[in-house]
Amino acid sequence: MRIGYKVWLDNKGKAFGDGPYELLKRVDKTHSLHRAAKEMGMAYSKAWRLIGAMEKRLGFLLIERKVGGQSGGGSRITPQGKNLMNHYEGFRKDAEKGLEKIYRKHFNLWK
Amino acid sequence: MRIGYKVWLDNKGKAFGDGPYELLKRVDKTHSLHRAAKEMGMAYSKAWRLIGAMEKRLGFLLIERKVGGQSGGGSRITPQGKNLMNHYEGFRKDAEKGLEKIYRKHFNLWK
Repeated sequence: MRIGYKVWLDNKGKAFGDGPYELLKRVDKTHSLHRAAKEMGMAYSKAWRLIGAMEKRLGFLLIERKVGGQSGGGSRITPQGKNLMNHYEGFRKDAEKGLEKIYRKHFNLWK
Repeated sequence: MRIGYKVWLDNKGKAFGDGPYELLKRVDKTHSLHRAAKEMGMAYSKAWRLIGAMEKRLGFLLIERKVGGQSGGGSRITPQGKNLMNHYEGFRKDAEKGLEKIYRKHFNLWK
């Protein structure tokens, strides 16, 4: 037996969570939402819908909208997006550690 | 913004969680899985399937199987089931408190 859990940020609906975090992490590395989505086996259109839904609930942009230019499109995380990712990372780690500890406290001797 | 979360016990699949806990709580009060399911707007057959699936993953019975007798059917929680409910109750409360605290630590000053 083990603990199962999901955590996310909520603002009248899912505003951020592991999936979007993972997607942004890959955008940050590849500078391409296209590639990031592909790496996760997600359709590009679905990735945009997901980002758009999160941005609406968060109240700020996660990915900069600039198209073209000499270096072509290229997706960049906004400063607010990076800030959110940093906070979420710490939160996520502490949630995992905390929940494991709480689980052990109540169920370690049980089974 | 607030934290959203779900916690459950896992044993190669969901073995126990808020829904089953709520159902058992009502069985314990009403001595009737029929009534408990109805109170939760759940079909009796679905309630039995849920209980059966949990029992399989937990490895013990949650509801005693005795049918008929002078007082008719009547559903009773097994001692192991009650024990699980008690542990789950404490776990659930601590998980809520712990996660709220972790959320505040990382996001209180953020938005």
